[in-house]
Amino acid sequence: MAESTLRAAQIAQTLGRELRGPDRDITGPGTLEDAGPESISFLANPKYVSQLSETSAGTIIVHADQADKAPHGAALIVSPNPYLDFARVLVMFMKPQGEFKGISPDARIAPDAVLGKDCTVYPFVFIGPRAKIGDRTVLFPGVYVGEDCELGEDIIVYPNAVFMAGTRIGANTIIHAGVVLGADGFGFVPGAGGIEKIPQVGIVSIGKSVEIGANSTIDRAALGETRVGDGTKIDNLVQLGHNVRMGKDCLIVSQVGISGSTHVGDRVTMAGQVGISGHLHIGSGATIGPKSGVARDIPENETVGGAPAVERGTYMRTLALMPKFPDMYKRLGQLEKELAKLKEELAAKP
Amino acid sequence: MAESTLRAAQIAQTLGRELRGPDRDITGPGTLEDAGPESISFLANPKYVSQLSETSAGTIIVHADQADKAPHGAALIVSPNPYLDFARVLVMFMKPQGEFKGISPDARIAPDAVLGKDCTVYPFVFIGPRAKIGDRTVLFPGVYVGEDCELGEDIIVYPNAVFMAGTRIGANTIIHAGVVLGADGFGFVPGAGGIEKIPQVGIVSIGKSVEIGANSTIDRAALGETRVGDGTKIDNLVQLGHNVRMGKDCLIVSQVGISGSTHVGDRVTMAGQVGISGHLHIGSGATIGPKSGVARDIPENETVGGAPAVERGTYMRTLALMPKFPDMYKRLGQLEKELAKLKEELAAKP
Amino acid sequence: MAESTLRAAQIAQTLGRELRGPDRDITGPGTLEDAGPESISFLANPKYVSQLSETSAGTIIVHADQADKAPHGAALIVSPNPYLDFARVLVMFMKPQGEFKGISPDARIAPDAVLGKDCTVYPFVFIGPRAKIGDRTVLFPGVYVGEDCELGEDIIVYPNAVFMAGTRIGANTIIHAGVVLGADGFGFVPGAGGIEKIPQVGIVSIGKSVEIGANSTIDRAALGETRVGDGTKIDNLVQLGHNVRMGKDCLIVSQVGISGSTHVGDRVTMAGQVGISGHLHIGSGATIGPKSGVARDIPENETVGGAPAVERGTYMRTLALMPKFPDMYKRLGQLEKELAKLKEELAAKP
Repeated sequence: MAESTLRAAQIAQTLGRELRGPDRDITGPGTLEDAGPESISFLANPKYVSQLSETSAGTIIVHADQADKAPHGAALIVSPNPYLDFARVLVMFMKPQGEFKGISPDARIAPDAVLGKDCTVYPFVFIGPRAKIGDRTVLFPGVYVGEDCELGEDIIVYPNAVFMAGTRIGANTIIHAGVVLGADGFGFVPGAGGIEKIPQVGIVSIGKSVEIGANSTIDRAALGETRVGDGTKIDNLVQLGHNVRMGKDCLIVSQVGISGSTHVGDRVTMAGQVGISGHLHIGSGATIGPKSGVARDIPENETVGGAPAVERGTYMRTLALMPKFPDMYKRLGQLEKELAKLKEELAAKP
Repeated sequence: MAESTLRAAQIAQTLGRELRGPDRDITGPGTLEDAGPESISFLANPKYVSQLSETSAGTIIVHADQADKAPHGAALIVSPNPYLDFARVLVMFMKPQGEFKGISPDARIAPDAVLGKDCTVYPFVFIGPRAKIGDRTVLFPGVYVGEDCELGEDIIVYPNAVFMAGTRIGANTIIHAGVVLGADGFGFVPGAGGIEKIPQVGIVSIGKSVEIGANSTIDRAALGETRVGDGTKIDNLVQLGHNVRMGKDCLIVSQVGISGSTHVGDRVTMAGQVGISGHLHIGSGATIGPKSGVARDIPENETVGGAPAVERGTYMRTLALMPKFPDMYKRLGQLEKELAKLKEELAAKP
Repeated sequence: MAESTLRAAQIAQTLGRELRGPDRDITGPGTLEDAGPESISFLANPKYVSQLSETSAGTIIVHADQADKAPHGAALIVSPNPYLDFARVLVMFMKPQGEFKGISPDARIAPDAVLGKDCTVYPFVFIGPRAKIGDRTVLFPGVYVGEDCELGEDIIVYPNAVFMAGTRIGANTIIHAGVVLGADGFGFVPGAGGIEKIPQVGIVSIGKSVEIGANSTIDRAALGETRVGDGTKIDNLVQLGHNVRMGKDCLIVSQVGISGSTHVGDRVTMAGQVGISGHLHIGSGATIGPKSGVARDIPENETVGGAPAVERGTYMRTLALMPKFPDMYKRLGQLEKELAKLKEELAAKP
């Protein structure tokens, strides 16, 4: 629900927070640095408290501890979690992408595809035979929905995303531009006449309230399903191989690659550019540090780093010592010389 | 040739294998865990032999050594290579993607483009001047074929793939969704007024029976050709720079990046997220471990790992010792202290 | 300005260089290995001087020092910088991609979008409400321009690139196929009912004379702008997170990922597969080696390598010692034994 002007008191009430100072008109959100008298801003990190005293923002969401640092005359919304409350304010002002409504005559939709109520289908969308599209789902230009796909309700699919045959997507999921779901898994077997392709006859199944970032790719299963659980958020340029199964509420940062048949639990966090080998189990609650290469199972709730990844404490200790390595090498050579000299001296003693 | 029902005896005969037990109807493939009485499954890895005794699969492809572990009443197809034979069975049941046939009036095809017999051109395809498309080649929606491209016979190009001008692709190749062939190589030279672009006037040339994964990118040569040899299989989100030349039957796993002018031999395997510097030679038969960073030429048939990559044995020994590093550091300091003490004691001796 | 035939004397004059030997017709550029009598080639690297004596190229751009090694009868253009001059010759022969002109009736353009003079809009382009497209800008098939986008003059946008709402792009910029600008940043906050999405209400702003490689992704800011400065060149499959600010004339090689809110100065070079953590400052003139993982601020003009990245000298020394690590481990154990023995011997002395 995008609004053009709201009052500070309205917002405070919706958030269930106390308003201190004057009520004010608010036309949109901004950072403490950029915001003006009709903007709402926030302070989450006490490290930036100096910005608070200098801001021109008319309305500020702030923790009670910092409220006294705010400029006189500002409307303050006092919150135990200013970042979360600011996110909710953003929703109030947010305008969804795209203004087209209805089913474009320039889309090509198979006669036996089934569209729910109030769907939006932009020009240049292709929907294949027997596909089902849930109520209020939006397909931007250039989207390809293969035969037998099943998309739930309130899904947003941004331009040029591709769903190969049989892909299933749960309600409220967001698919960003250029995503490819259901391309063939990378399955080959050496045959007499060279490398033979193993047909990939499974599908991709995405849960509810998932988000998949631009140009990410998730391959169909060789047999059965490649799965992403409800609430999981995947960033841009991520690759999930065939038969990966990922649980709920995971956060997978950009350029991560997960090889085939690896199972990932719930609430797992993977930082950018992580690589995971195939056929592994990553326990629920695990955290994988940036650029890690994981070549073994990871227990529940363990934090790992490095390539190959080891438990975080070991990794950090090793890292801290790395710059000392050249010095250690010298010291080792020095020790050997001194020991040899000592031996000689000892031999010379009576 | 997708079939809806086959008999076990038919399949055994086609594979040239022995059938043991009753003949059965088969409606499709499945895993040992999921398959039912009308499914065909397989056991390749003896590690999973316990699944064999518990499966409900009506027909099972199995090695002679494990045949006695299969449930009574199952039809057994006895094979020296169950995985390869199962792949062939998958082909018998596989339904190709897409059901559209013919040349869509919603495609835009240059008048002087030449299409072979029985091509399929979906809606929203663009084919530029003088492009040639071989017999039975299929172009899914949103595919762009630039001017002067030459595509061979029996190629499948999935949605939204892009071939810039002059790209050549051999017969039987599969291009997955979102692939970009022939974008400009990354070539710049410092000039008086900043960075100057070096025009990239070469092309991309892809061999026969190649497969290129979703959203991968292969740049056109600065001059001449960027080449991928026959039978090579490339996974998703892979990047090949300008003037890379890659041989036959290579396997290049997801998110690999190969810099400009590097030459790769035949039958080279690169695991996920490998990076190769420019102007190198990677010998035929080489294997590059996951996440390796290659900064030197690799001899034929060598296996390497690490960043920078070294011979596998050295890499594995180093890896094994890494967790001992903090301990080594302590021991080195301890040795130095003891040696100093010993020196003093020795000096005190007569 | 693509020409089909030029004379060597014309080219020398345009470059402001001396022509030695006969004047000749030139129909195109080539490498020393491939070029024929009607081709122009160059020698930049003295390492390849042996190719010079063997080439069939009719015209060669060459440094004065190597001019005497060229074959008799060749036309020589003598240059202090043969590579840069050859790049300029390539421009003379280069044919721009695509031959379509005008505004296709098969594009869908919002009535209130504003197109400049002599724009080219291919079929299957979608332009949203209030978008502005500068003079002579070219949009290839499948391009999506969201509402309120502002594109400058003389921009080239290759097929299937996507600009979400509000994206701004400066004049003379080149966007390669499959690029996605302005997808939502990866911003989430733990809420009571799971992970809550932080609406991303900022935009992407790209400078003038920028180039962005195929399938790269640059996310919109959470608030404010994600910025790329004038003259910066970005390779394929690169990811820039929300609120990244990058300066002028940077070179960012393929598969680099930069996390949210990191600021990058001017003239920064990042080699392939570099990863940069969020909220960092990378100083102007810095160079980041291939596959580095940067987890701290980098001072101006510093060269770093490794993961985590350290100053290049330290990195190179550590690298050089890595293969000696197993040997060091052995030597350390040996030293301990010898020291223990020496202690015993010393104790036995009077």
